[in-house]
Amino acid sequence: MLFERIESPGLAHYSYLVGDGREAVVIDPRRDCDIYIDTATRQGYRITAVLETHRNEDYLIGSRELGERTGAEIWHADSQWDYRYGSPARDGQSWEVGGLRLEALHSPGHTPGHMSYVLHDPSGTPWMLFSGDALFSGDTGRVDLMGEGRMEEMAGLLWETIFHRFLPLGDGVILCPAHGAGSVCGGGSISPRSWTTLGLERRLNPALSYFERSLFIEKTARAHERPPYFERMEELNVQGPAPLHGLPSPPPLSPGEFGDRAGEGTVLDTRSETSFAPAHIPKALSIGRDAVAKYSGWFLPYHLPILLVDEENDHEETIRSLVRTGFDNIGGFLSGGMLSWLRAGYVVRSSGLISSEELCHRLDQGEQPFILDVRTERELDTVGRVPEAKNVPITQLPLHLHEIPCDREINVLCSSGVRSTIGASILQQFGWENVTVILGGTDAWSSTACPLEKPREEPEYTGA
Amino acid sequence: MLFERIESPGLAHYSYLVGDGREAVVIDPRRDCDIYIDTATRQGYRITAVLETHRNEDYLIGSRELGERTGAEIWHADSQWDYRYGSPARDGQSWEVGGLRLEALHSPGHTPGHMSYVLHDPSGTPWMLFSGDALFSGDTGRVDLMGEGRMEEMAGLLWETIFHRFLPLGDGVILCPAHGAGSVCGGGSISPRSWTTLGLERRLNPALSYFERSLFIEKTARAHERPPYFERMEELNVQGPAPLHGLPSPPPLSPGEFGDRAGEGTVLDTRSETSFAPAHIPKALSIGRDAVAKYSGWFLPYHLPILLVDEENDHEETIRSLVRTGFDNIGGFLSGGMLSWLRAGYVVRSSGLISSEELCHRLDQGEQPFILDVRTERELDTVGRVPEAKNVPITQLPLHLHEIPCDREINVLCSSGVRSTIGASILQQFGWENVTVILGGTDAWSSTACPLEKPREEPEYTGA
Amino acid sequence: MLFERIESPGLAHYSYLVGDGREAVVIDPRRDCDIYIDTATRQGYRITAVLETHRNEDYLIGSRELGERTGAEIWHADSQWDYRYGSPARDGQSWEVGGLRLEALHSPGHTPGHMSYVLHDPSGTPWMLFSGDALFSGDTGRVDLMGEGRMEEMAGLLWETIFHRFLPLGDGVILCPAHGAGSVCGGGSISPRSWTTLGLERRLNPALSYFERSLFIEKTARAHERPPYFERMEELNVQGPAPLHGLPSPPPLSPGEFGDRAGEGTVLDTRSETSFAPAHIPKALSIGRDAVAKYSGWFLPYHLPILLVDEENDHEETIRSLVRTGFDNIGGFLSGGMLSWLRAGYVVRSSGLISSEELCHRLDQGEQPFILDVRTERELDTVGRVPEAKNVPITQLPLHLHEIPCDREINVLCSSGVRSTIGASILQQFGWENVTVILGGTDAWSSTACPLEKPREEPEYTGA
Amino acid sequence: MLFERIESPGLAHYSYLVGDGREAVVIDPRRDCDIYIDTATRQGYRITAVLETHRNEDYLIGSRELGERTGAEIWHADSQWDYRYGSPARDGQSWEVGGLRLEALHSPGHTPGHMSYVLHDPSGTPWMLFSGDALFSGDTGRVDLMGEGRMEEMAGLLWETIFHRFLPLGDGVILCPAHGAGSVCGGGSISPRSWTTLGLERRLNPALSYFERSLFIEKTARAHERPPYFERMEELNVQGPAPLHGLPSPPPLSPGEFGDRAGEGTVLDTRSETSFAPAHIPKALSIGRDAVAKYSGWFLPYHLPILLVDEENDHEETIRSLVRTGFDNIGGFLSGGMLSWLRAGYVVRSSGLISSEELCHRLDQGEQPFILDVRTERELDTVGRVPEAKNVPITQLPLHLHEIPCDREINVLCSSGVRSTIGASILQQFGWENVTVILGGTDAWSSTACPLEKPREEPEYTGA
Repeated sequence: MLFERIESPGLAHYSYLVGDGREAVVIDPRRDCDIYIDTATRQGYRITAVLETHRNEDYLIGSRELGERTGAEIWHADSQWDYRYGSPARDGQSWEVGGLRLEALHSPGHTPGHMSYVLHDPSGTPWMLFSGDALFSGDTGRVDLMGEGRMEEMAGLLWETIFHRFLPLGDGVILCPAHGAGSVCGGGSISPRSWTTLGLERRLNPALSYFERSLFIEKTARAHERPPYFERMEELNVQGPAPLHGLPSPPPLSPGEFGDRAGEGTVLDTRSETSFAPAHIPKALSIGRDAVAKYSGWFLPYHLPILLVDEENDHEETIRSLVRTGFDNIGGFLSGGMLSWLRAGYVVRSSGLISSEELCHRLDQGEQPFILDVRTERELDTVGRVPEAKNVPITQLPLHLHEIPCDREINVLCSSGVRSTIGASILQQFGWENVTVILGGTDAWSSTACPLEKPREEPEYTGA
Repeated sequence: MLFERIESPGLAHYSYLVGDGREAVVIDPRRDCDIYIDTATRQGYRITAVLETHRNEDYLIGSRELGERTGAEIWHADSQWDYRYGSPARDGQSWEVGGLRLEALHSPGHTPGHMSYVLHDPSGTPWMLFSGDALFSGDTGRVDLMGEGRMEEMAGLLWETIFHRFLPLGDGVILCPAHGAGSVCGGGSISPRSWTTLGLERRLNPALSYFERSLFIEKTARAHERPPYFERMEELNVQGPAPLHGLPSPPPLSPGEFGDRAGEGTVLDTRSETSFAPAHIPKALSIGRDAVAKYSGWFLPYHLPILLVDEENDHEETIRSLVRTGFDNIGGFLSGGMLSWLRAGYVVRSSGLISSEELCHRLDQGEQPFILDVRTERELDTVGRVPEAKNVPITQLPLHLHEIPCDREINVLCSSGVRSTIGASILQQFGWENVTVILGGTDAWSSTACPLEKPREEPEYTGA
Repeated sequence: MLFERIESPGLAHYSYLVGDGREAVVIDPRRDCDIYIDTATRQGYRITAVLETHRNEDYLIGSRELGERTGAEIWHADSQWDYRYGSPARDGQSWEVGGLRLEALHSPGHTPGHMSYVLHDPSGTPWMLFSGDALFSGDTGRVDLMGEGRMEEMAGLLWETIFHRFLPLGDGVILCPAHGAGSVCGGGSISPRSWTTLGLERRLNPALSYFERSLFIEKTARAHERPPYFERMEELNVQGPAPLHGLPSPPPLSPGEFGDRAGEGTVLDTRSETSFAPAHIPKALSIGRDAVAKYSGWFLPYHLPILLVDEENDHEETIRSLVRTGFDNIGGFLSGGMLSWLRAGYVVRSSGLISSEELCHRLDQGEQPFILDVRTERELDTVGRVPEAKNVPITQLPLHLHEIPCDREINVLCSSGVRSTIGASILQQFGWENVTVILGGTDAWSSTACPLEKPREEPEYTGA
Repeated sequence: MLFERIESPGLAHYSYLVGDGREAVVIDPRRDCDIYIDTATRQGYRITAVLETHRNEDYLIGSRELGERTGAEIWHADSQWDYRYGSPARDGQSWEVGGLRLEALHSPGHTPGHMSYVLHDPSGTPWMLFSGDALFSGDTGRVDLMGEGRMEEMAGLLWETIFHRFLPLGDGVILCPAHGAGSVCGGGSISPRSWTTLGLERRLNPALSYFERSLFIEKTARAHERPPYFERMEELNVQGPAPLHGLPSPPPLSPGEFGDRAGEGTVLDTRSETSFAPAHIPKALSIGRDAVAKYSGWFLPYHLPILLVDEENDHEETIRSLVRTGFDNIGGFLSGGMLSWLRAGYVVRSSGLISSEELCHRLDQGEQPFILDVRTERELDTVGRVPEAKNVPITQLPLHLHEIPCDREINVLCSSGVRSTIGASILQQFGWENVTVILGGTDAWSSTACPLEKPREEPEYTGA
């Protein structure tokens, strides 16, 4: 028997490989799909079917390439949309996998045609529930993707799905959702409890305490951020993303070559926040290595080649993150990193760096620096606000540039320094010259003159 | 948060790495313990404690080396025995691991001082149960290790453990036992359902249907085979096994060198059954590569160096299996495999090979070959007997050699050919000259004159 | 500075990656070309050119795919043929690679338009000679590829190339040929001296002792075996082989599926000779794992899918060998190996096995078995003949089947047992029923009644 | 036949594995010696002897551990010193390795008892010369290790070695020295020509143009820097370094733990120069990842535990570099890197950063900043001097601190920024507060007011 959860960090995406008797099924494959073929083949399994839980909006699905390479059949959920490949899965349809059986369960709410799949053990007992984006560990799927006008309708459907279709399967059923903590597909509070069951969710998932349909709708029908790249993912997933056949291998570029191409592309600098600030290529966009999966879709344009700056010659993880969200056009990387650029005598830009401690000290001395706080509303509510700071969530920054003064030093604040550096690089791209990143962020905040202002009480439910 | 199940095939041993907030705990580590250090370190965790569920009898525990290399504290269960290292864990004792908490739960039955560990999530809810050898997927731990005289007592304790201590934790709790299907530590029917919960066990585990204490005792208090190496494991685990510091790397030996050393060691031939039969080194013991973990402890003497014959130069998995059960003295391997032996003109022995089809054909023609069936009693009961065959389970063969005729061709039968080849090699070691392995075994049996005789009805409970 | 020799075993093919100052050149790339891109990129080099020494006849060149994936320019030798891609390299043309310079040197003999490339160090001194198939360690390139009628002409050109163009470069120059020992592109005696120089060759290469042109021609103008797949390689290399984009990953097949497909494909069994003989799928062709690269082109048809039988689920090396010679159509592999086939009760065939010792014993007893010796003429000359044996080199066997008696046991002999097993499988494919492989071959020969008959004296030159 | 050159970057150390007929010999093994065992074993070779060319001063030799783990005999050169293990190799002694033969050649100069080893091919022809630290590609071994008083004597011996013992072997012999470009064991100008022959050296090695003994002595008898760790290496290599049994795996430490231990250890920060400057732990020593092998022995004390700061959790290469020079006491690494330190609100220090461009601009404006140039004398001579700069080679900095003003901003200059950052961190360790690194260094220098002053003419010989 084969059961593997394949985790794609950054997107916090979980896909699954389930097999028995030499046949295997993949649920919600990612685009760089060699891992499923390799894992299955090495253990003697052949992939015969690919099951999708919904039309994904946050990454490119690997079904088409996986189908072409293995001969597996592809079964789509959300058949109300016009898929150009594969076949629609029907509620109640089932697939034999050796002695096991997978059964499709229509589970609308996140999308209208969302399907979950119940894995039955050879005795017919429900064993696992592949719940896609309907139910997560500690959270439920967001219901705002059909538009704010349909949020209550979708929330009602989700209530029905969870209380009438999922929970009756029994507390002992192992829950296998499509995402873990950090994903943008939940209500914002997916738990780090990385393995869970329906019983644990019944006890610990805040949303599952709203037995009453109208209360559930009231609590979960909320709008969330919608990254601009979602639309492209939705479109390409219906068409079928272009096959990758292995990862792209962008060429090393000398400083001269890199400089020549930089004018017609986007320079993406994935170095750490301390590395970026003192010296970077003019107009470079900073997204730290671990944040590429999450923020590329917000800030990178699709129509320009991407030129990478890093401190290593091995960009595999960065490239995986990029192609998973459709950024296939990677023009090269700066060979030898920034040091080679500097030794070649090319021009660099810098931004300021200040530790939270120093900034707090300045505040306590009575100074009044301009602080741009790029954290989310939720963080402001739960962690606390810096009084006097201007708040613009990092993802909204490009739309609110006109609200930022041009003639002052801008001190950018987040919880750590990672998003601040993204923000600082965006401001610099648009011409701001005096930009400083606050290292350590609110995590290290310690001003007595200007302490974090916490909300009066904890919000009752942080689930959605 | 860190949760990894480390699986050691062959022994079907599961150990676990659980971490939060940069600290990690290992439960029941195996002897080749680099994997825990590497996995934890790479993700930024430090191993601070090792928890044992019981004095293991079927493999060498890695606690001592892991403790020495990481500084982790070692906590033993079964403190009634005189451990030379580490400290005894007490019922109810708990360990903080970041925001998580592990709590020891005295759970006797398999051994008197067996401990399980309940992992509580940050809210205090029971999340996972590390049940050691008390409760498995589809089976319970064997209760005969304290001797047949105490089996009923131990079974009663196990009933108490399962019904009064485990099940009240709730159906949603994820069950993390120390073994999967194929282990010798269960009652013989651990399920291939590789991930499970208390709820699933309540529904699917045959032993958990015996709510009534006396019925549970009646059904589970059974004696099982006890491999001769158990005693050595028990002793060494209490003393603390010698540190490995990486795997041994036995040297390649030329045919001449190999031959010279073979006289003072055991030749262990791990090639496939078809390879072994036509040409092997005289006195070689055959144990196919995948069976080494399971059968070495039955047939390999500890006091002699082991000399390996295989078709590959990479013996890593074989060596891991050997050291996990204390066979550290590996003298070398035959460089270039059997082909080099043959080209050097050294003498070889052979055994016969016959496919099930051919043998069945001979039976159907009226011949009466001597068939030695080395399958277990259970297989005879569930799969069926070959009438007229002499039955000696493979593990009992060395004790029953006097029952095998010396003057006839011995046709050795198992379900496939793997154990038959072990059996054939043992017979040849002791001087039998006319030995034939039945390829395909009972899986391919098709005699009409001599069909497999199935028992009248399925046994009601195959659990123990 | 970057210098890597990439070795492809089996074909004994050497390709080279040479770089300086972030640019790199590949000489004679193999078809599975990821290794050049990965090696160069990891060290910060970009592949800017691919240089070919000649139109290869023994493997598919990777230039086209490498050019497409890196943007490198492709430079062909042998421009008298009509290449569909790339550009012709001219004698004397040179390429700057950082501070290094490569210069083309017309070096006919093996082919008419063969080019070698001299690498000059920054001072302009000749440093390395990439000699393609003109000069090897201990041997020269074969000159019979243009047909026997032109052998003397080509040998004369080769004499000119070696004595007038190569040797004047100086003894200290490092020689980098396209093949090592075992290749079919030399005169048959490429030396295992794996690194060499022009000075060492002048001293040790037998062919280089024939200073006199006519003597050189007399000694080297000899015809060698020409595998049937050469023609296909020559044609595809001029057209440009189809891009691979990663290795094919054939699916695991159950015994039933495998059996269904076997009828319309070629079963290729790569197990060892001892494994193959006692039990194999009817009509299976045996080519041991390490011999696939060398013998596939002789015995595998191109128009049928290949179905693999092995003892491992990892066939990477076998698949690499197959695609390097254009066998891209691999239909699957038998999951679980022969054991699964046997357990499923499917029919098997067997051939006999006898050790050299036993056979010699039979000969010494006066028996007169039929011995088919499949070694080459050269081996007969240098190692010795078995009197009375029928000699047919393994590669010629399909053309000489009518010379083999059908009504006797055929004992197949080679030096070890590897080629004998190929031969035995071919005889069985064509209906011979009583075929036996001699394990250990002539390496283990020890008959007194029938000793190996050595030629009276060593041949003066074994070079070609 | 087996020939592998094992390269250890940083130290630019080359060791060799040479085998034939299943036996292999290692020449000058490094301390982390698994690579020899793994490489040999995988190809079916057993290591039977370890040959040392001299008592190494720049790294710990792996002979003792390799001998203990494989049973190989150890043969020392420099037997005038009192080795506690192994046996002395004698001039002319030879070792059979399959059909090959290695012969010891007394080759004093670098050390008094230095041995080289000539590899003879089966015909007896000299094929390769393992020349240790006597002769390198483009350079000769330094002769000052016995003290300046004996330099001329040693240079005379080296002349004898090279001209009377090496060159007569013939131009075609492949030269296999113990170091490549970057090593401190040559005269300072080992060539990047990574593969070479005696013929190429005769033509290209400047030292080999001094046929005349007295001229050779005059040119090569020069004193070079002697890192403080040499003495420890020399002592331990005679005693036998402690066995490693695998690499140490230092534990991840939280910021709090790291801070606690930092007081009693050395914080070694291996991040890039741009990362280090803006934020580092007080008293941290900066040595960029790629420079660890080269500079640890100069600046790290042996008696304190080392605490690592990096941006990755994988420190394997750093740890290898450290243990190769005897820094075994690695106390841990900062888990989560500097970001975790900053988020915890711990105090950081910073140094300034200025690009060469900016500094040159300031110079051209007439400013007079204090410039500390940490390049070597040779670089000053060949690349040029910055007028007015204070020159102290980086390795001499700790001895010349009193020459650096405390009350000015110190702008540290090297060729790139790497050594400047080391220098800046040392100054900060000793209390300097206003320290700035010049990014891009002299490679990017462009001042018109203060151009690099080149020496009037190129020095005639840069070899030693």
